[in-house]
Amino acid sequence: ADFLSLADYERQAQDFMPHPVYEYIAGGADRDQALNNNRTSFDDWQILPSVLNSFRQANSTVHLIGQALAHPIIAAPVAYQRLVHNEGELATAQACTATESQMVVSTLTSQPLAAIGEQVASPWFQLYFQAQKQQTLQLVRQAEDAGYSALMVTVDVPINGLRIRAQKAGFALPPAVRAVHVSDAPPPLIEANQSVILNGYMAHSPSWDDIAWLQQQTQLPIFLKGILSTHDASQAQQAGLAGVVVSNHGGRSLDCLASPIHQIAAIRAAVGGDFSLILDSGVRHGTDVFKALALGANAVMIGRPIMYGLAIAGALGVAHCLKLLREEFELTMALAGCPTVEAITASHITRRP
Amino acid sequence: ADFLSLADYERQAQDFMPHPVYEYIAGGADRDQALNNNRTSFDDWQILPSVLNSFRQANSTVHLIGQALAHPIIAAPVAYQRLVHNEGELATAQACTATESQMVVSTLTSQPLAAIGEQVASPWFQLYFQAQKQQTLQLVRQAEDAGYSALMVTVDVPINGLRIRAQKAGFALPPAVRAVHVSDAPPPLIEANQSVILNGYMAHSPSWDDIAWLQQQTQLPIFLKGILSTHDASQAQQAGLAGVVVSNHGGRSLDCLASPIHQIAAIRAAVGGDFSLILDSGVRHGTDVFKALALGANAVMIGRPIMYGLAIAGALGVAHCLKLLREEFELTMALAGCPTVEAITASHITRRP
Amino acid sequence: ADFLSLADYERQAQDFMPHPVYEYIAGGADRDQALNNNRTSFDDWQILPSVLNSFRQANSTVHLIGQALAHPIIAAPVAYQRLVHNEGELATAQACTATESQMVVSTLTSQPLAAIGEQVASPWFQLYFQAQKQQTLQLVRQAEDAGYSALMVTVDVPINGLRIRAQKAGFALPPAVRAVHVSDAPPPLIEANQSVILNGYMAHSPSWDDIAWLQQQTQLPIFLKGILSTHDASQAQQAGLAGVVVSNHGGRSLDCLASPIHQIAAIRAAVGGDFSLILDSGVRHGTDVFKALALGANAVMIGRPIMYGLAIAGALGVAHCLKLLREEFELTMALAGCPTVEAITASHITRRP
Amino acid sequence: ADFLSLADYERQAQDFMPHPVYEYIAGGADRDQALNNNRTSFDDWQILPSVLNSFRQANSTVHLIGQALAHPIIAAPVAYQRLVHNEGELATAQACTATESQMVVSTLTSQPLAAIGEQVASPWFQLYFQAQKQQTLQLVRQAEDAGYSALMVTVDVPINGLRIRAQKAGFALPPAVRAVHVSDAPPPLIEANQSVILNGYMAHSPSWDDIAWLQQQTQLPIFLKGILSTHDASQAQQAGLAGVVVSNHGGRSLDCLASPIHQIAAIRAAVGGDFSLILDSGVRHGTDVFKALALGANAVMIGRPIMYGLAIAGALGVAHCLKLLREEFELTMALAGCPTVEAITASHITRRP
Ligand SMILES: Cc1cc2nc3c(=O)[nH]c(=O)nc-3n(C[C@H](O)[C@H](O)[C@H](O)COP(=O)(O)O)c2cc1C
Ligand SMILES: Cc1cc2nc3c(=O)[nH]c(=O)nc-3n(C[C@H](O)[C@H](O)[C@H](O)COP(=O)(O)O)c2cc1C
Ligand SMILES: Cc1cc2nc3c(=O)[nH]c(=O)nc-3n(C[C@H](O)[C@H](O)[C@H](O)COP(=O)(O)O)c2cc1C
Ligand SMILES: Cc1cc2nc3c(=O)[nH]c(=O)nc-3n(C[C@H](O)[C@H](O)[C@H](O)COP(=O)(O)O)c2cc1C
Repeated sequence: ADFLSLADYERQAQDFMPHPVYEYIAGGADRDQALNNNRTSFDDWQILPSVLNSFRQANSTVHLIGQALAHPIIAAPVAYQRLVHNEGELATAQACTATESQMVVSTLTSQPLAAIGEQVASPWFQLYFQAQKQQTLQLVRQAEDAGYSALMVTVDVPINGLRIRAQKAGFALPPAVRAVHVSDAPPPLIEANQSVILNGYMAHSPSWDDIAWLQQQTQLPIFLKGILSTHDASQAQQAGLAGVVVSNHGGRSLDCLASPIHQIAAIRAAVGGDFSLILDSGVRHGTDVFKALALGANAVMIGRPIMYGLAIAGALGVAHCLKLLREEFELTMALAGCPTVEAITASHITRRP
Repeated sequence: ADFLSLADYERQAQDFMPHPVYEYIAGGADRDQALNNNRTSFDDWQILPSVLNSFRQANSTVHLIGQALAHPIIAAPVAYQRLVHNEGELATAQACTATESQMVVSTLTSQPLAAIGEQVASPWFQLYFQAQKQQTLQLVRQAEDAGYSALMVTVDVPINGLRIRAQKAGFALPPAVRAVHVSDAPPPLIEANQSVILNGYMAHSPSWDDIAWLQQQTQLPIFLKGILSTHDASQAQQAGLAGVVVSNHGGRSLDCLASPIHQIAAIRAAVGGDFSLILDSGVRHGTDVFKALALGANAVMIGRPIMYGLAIAGALGVAHCLKLLREEFELTMALAGCPTVEAITASHITRRP
Repeated sequence: ADFLSLADYERQAQDFMPHPVYEYIAGGADRDQALNNNRTSFDDWQILPSVLNSFRQANSTVHLIGQALAHPIIAAPVAYQRLVHNEGELATAQACTATESQMVVSTLTSQPLAAIGEQVASPWFQLYFQAQKQQTLQLVRQAEDAGYSALMVTVDVPINGLRIRAQKAGFALPPAVRAVHVSDAPPPLIEANQSVILNGYMAHSPSWDDIAWLQQQTQLPIFLKGILSTHDASQAQQAGLAGVVVSNHGGRSLDCLASPIHQIAAIRAAVGGDFSLILDSGVRHGTDVFKALALGANAVMIGRPIMYGLAIAGALGVAHCLKLLREEFELTMALAGCPTVEAITASHITRRP
Repeated sequence: ADFLSLADYERQAQDFMPHPVYEYIAGGADRDQALNNNRTSFDDWQILPSVLNSFRQANSTVHLIGQALAHPIIAAPVAYQRLVHNEGELATAQACTATESQMVVSTLTSQPLAAIGEQVASPWFQLYFQAQKQQTLQLVRQAEDAGYSALMVTVDVPINGLRIRAQKAGFALPPAVRAVHVSDAPPPLIEANQSVILNGYMAHSPSWDDIAWLQQQTQLPIFLKGILSTHDASQAQQAGLAGVVVSNHGGRSLDCLASPIHQIAAIRAAVGGDFSLILDSGVRHGTDVFKALALGANAVMIGRPIMYGLAIAGALGVAHCLKLLREEFELTMALAGCPTVEAITASHITRRP
């Protein structure tokens, strides 16, 4: 079988994992509306090339929070990577090293932070706030100690979204796969007449105050992950954070959420040029990366493709996915007449009429 | 079989009732355009969450005509509920009690108003004007005597819509099921050259004068049910009514009618903040409830799902439907960052681009 | 089989005629784009009812060029009606009489004008300009003599459109069916280097001068049939004509033409309130009639349904189609709260969002 | 089998060539989005006819760079025409002569420029810049010597697009078919850490300076082929070029590119009336030609249909395709009321609502 694009990986991934696991990974929240919109929303934009530009100095480097990335495609934090390959996050780390890609490691990693940190230079750590501040702090310290160079606090799933597909398929974590750094949250406690959702599960959801507290505990630059509104992006900027990830969690939190690619331009307009914006959710093609950057993102992340590459061919599969995407992106730069990422502006993009 | 959402109930309901009955309940007017648009119109809106808000005081209570409802999901008036379950409206009443849901009882109830009133606290009564004012008044008195706390006058079907699906399936009321409080209307009388529709069936259609008359007969707050235009909503407000139900009768009156979810924002703008707006027609999901409220509704009603729950599992089925919907709604509040219904504003919603 | 709407007639008509004849009648020009758009364009509009209006004086009468029509649904000029029923135009005439419908008779009628005029009160005559003025004049005189009360000059097919479906099906007029009042046009004559289309077939296409000439020959009110632009409608008005038919010839002339229902509002705005506008092309339902009137038409015509009714049940079939459509229209008036056609205004209509 | 339109040729072409060749010709870049959009974008426009105009002086002649074309339909440069017919470009040239069509010959022609020039009057030459200026100049001189009357420099594929369909089908040029005037480019050379795409393949991509150089080498009028932005069109105009071809290379360069038919109006507005604009990509029907001209093009080109006609019936097939398209175009002029191409203005066109 040919693997000429991420679509090929996506199509064949089902054959490389048990069906419930596939449903857990591939599925979105509820009726998959956000999931499907994430893909089709990219089609709402078309590219307007410019011709005859010089490519003497061409390159795809981007600069973010003082770091230079060889290209703007980042491996998103994805939990439990040992679900689909025994080496899990370690393999992904090797693939990122091989392809000069930035890696973000989940709080729910199934391999130790330190071991991952040995396979890839200065990864970033995705943080889920824990029920107790002390637990949260311990996670941060472990990341710092292992040389992680930024924190990405995920704020869009204070409570799990509905996972109808996973539920119908009977998905459960196999005993051999677990989050090595965190333990299960206690069941929610509510009083009579209280809502198990609004008052139970949401009791420990983090707030802006908790973000301020976190800033005081660490020197690492902090991103908020899961922002869709201009208001929240501006608030993050005013709070002195490093940037935000414009994301709907790959369509896995709340169905009906807007697509990041439709929000990114307004958010860039709101925060101005100097605030880092990373976009994820539905990025599958080099043209998607180009569109995200043209509309204001500094970089993008991919989630599910990591798991598909891992399932099909381990570190090699992940590396091939990242390489394919980078090549597609650079080909898009070439055909669109943009020799550098700075040249990828809104004038190279138009709404599909 | 799993019942994880109202869609599961809807899908399986057909197996729990004779086909003609299913066609009568599930069908819309004519070619089902309004029916289908009611559903897809919700997809025209997407949700923009805000993050990191405090949920300390979170709850889903709404206030309407001086009454506090535990949540904004109301059981719509649906005729002849004994069609699908022997206990009919009594079972629905029990389910509303169990789930803290407001119930509205149809003029065409197949169980006595008084008996229903014993199963649920302060239900509302849906009124169809009768050919004779005396008959209309008698219905109102019966509702008042049984402790009903509001009237909902349905004004969007002065004449029955075309029910092609029910007609093709050969639907007719079985002898055992009948409207216990009203008797059949006499066949229309017309003169030569008159239209059986415009002059016959429409002869006794109610007018604004009849509404004014009704206001003089009762102390109960009155809603008009079946409003789609800003003009009519404003006229209802100026007439001193309690509110209106923005509805196209679940797509059962006139095919081609606009969808309530597309009219609600303009109507809210026309009447200002202090007039009660209830929306129905196509509400099937917690995100639908959220969108309706974000666009200006105070509460929503569901019609067909009541019949599906009833058909599949009686009072338990109806209660489960109402519970599922409330949980989806509260989950949407949580993930959208809205701790109370007051926080659900237009800034949390955006047109699908 | 049930015949509850024109859709039922349309679906079953194929079984009542040879396939090539069906393709000739049902087909549009070329790829059927205009044909299909004609139908779907009606769906771009939705109805906003108003409630609680008095129907004391309700009726569906319209006034046009000084004539009162019992309702606004007119039988369009359709050629060769004997193709599908031996009595052809005579049966259609009887059906129009039975249903109080205005009839328009084609230049290409397969029954004599005079005989038709005996079956229906004051029909209108649809005129195709002939290669010779004398032939044209003779047609007009025959119509005048037979009591026809208006002329409708068709201007949108100076040359036949592409009829791919009819051509592929091998359609040809059977020997027994012919236009009884006109003879075949001579083949086009062109010089070397001339275009057989632009210089050959178009050599005898009528111009505004010919219309002026016609006005001098007759006292009958004249409609132009086949107008889609505001410019042409205004020119017809300034020329002193009685009105225009906003039409794309049922999608049979040029594929890609705009749909009349999308042009009618702009044309009404251009000509003001006092100029008669009739709309055809794709009208199949009472709600279509309502929408056309709400957007500015005074009346509508139906073409193919006449042939379907005729094929399935002769005069009875045509009458039933006209009756169904009128009843649907009056039901729409009732449910939309419009007791008269004057009440059907743009405020009762909205673009589907 | 009937061949009544280019669609018939397109459908049947697959049976007249090996599957990999068909995939190479029919396919677009990557996922075929640009390819498919090219077709559907034409449907976004509809035609508004005007009626009763005089066709006394009707004709379809256009004037371009001082040359009179009998009609505005041009055979686009298509490489390797011997792939589908042994006579290749020679047959196409004969067909252009027979149908009074302008021909453009590709740099990658599989027949000698001189031999083609003997079969058709003053063809144009499509130029791809070669790695060495000297090679480029030699091509220009060969074209000049063979009587070619214009140059068309293709600028939208400095690097080949992704040809997933051709790749998956295993397409390769058969040994018997080759570009007779150019030799293969050397493989790209890059330094460590350079991108094979951005620094390797793009090393020899032409720039505006190269265009200026070319203008100094030749007297022939020069078109740029592959322009989609107003900026580039204006720059071409200011550089003193003869015109541009608004094109996305038939959807073969970069997927996601905008459709030329959606860009042409803005480009015409930017360059004013005196600069030649040719449109290609997806033109398949006479109404497409009409729409392109109404929106501002002076002429159109067709690419793939040439290959389909050639494959099915050699010179005769190509001639028949060109004749069909011209007849459809003239029929469109007739039914839209435009006796000359000058009459085809924006007032005859409207966005599909
Ligand atoms: C199986 C799976 C597990 C994920 N786990 C996490 C996680 O632990 N933390 C987190 O912030 N995001 C997590 N995400 C979301 C991703 O970081 C990312 O936002 C999303 O996958 C991007 O969308 P895409 O999958 O369409 O590329 C997960 C996504 C998937 C598919
Ligand atoms: C079977 C059935 C019977 C109904 N009977 C009544 C009725 O008696 N009175 C009334 O005002 N509305 C009646 N309705 C309309 C509902 O009150 C409500 O407006 C509608 O069902 C809402 O749309 P939904 O079914 O999509 O939720 C009925 C609806 C259905 C489906
Ligand atoms: C089979 C057929 C024959 C027609 N013949 C004529 C005709 O002779 N003269 C004319 O003006 N229009 C003719 N028309 C067009 C109709 O008058 C009318 O404009 C069209 O049918 C309306 O569209 P509809 O068929 O969608 O209702 C014909 C239409 C059909 C379908
Ligand atoms: C098989 C094939 C080969 C082509 N070769 C060339 C070429 O050598 N030079 C060039 O400028 N364009 C080339 N084109 C592009 C055409 O000139 C033209 O832009 C395109 O085909 C127009 O789109 P259409 O195929 O939809 O009509 C080629 C197109 C095809 C399909």
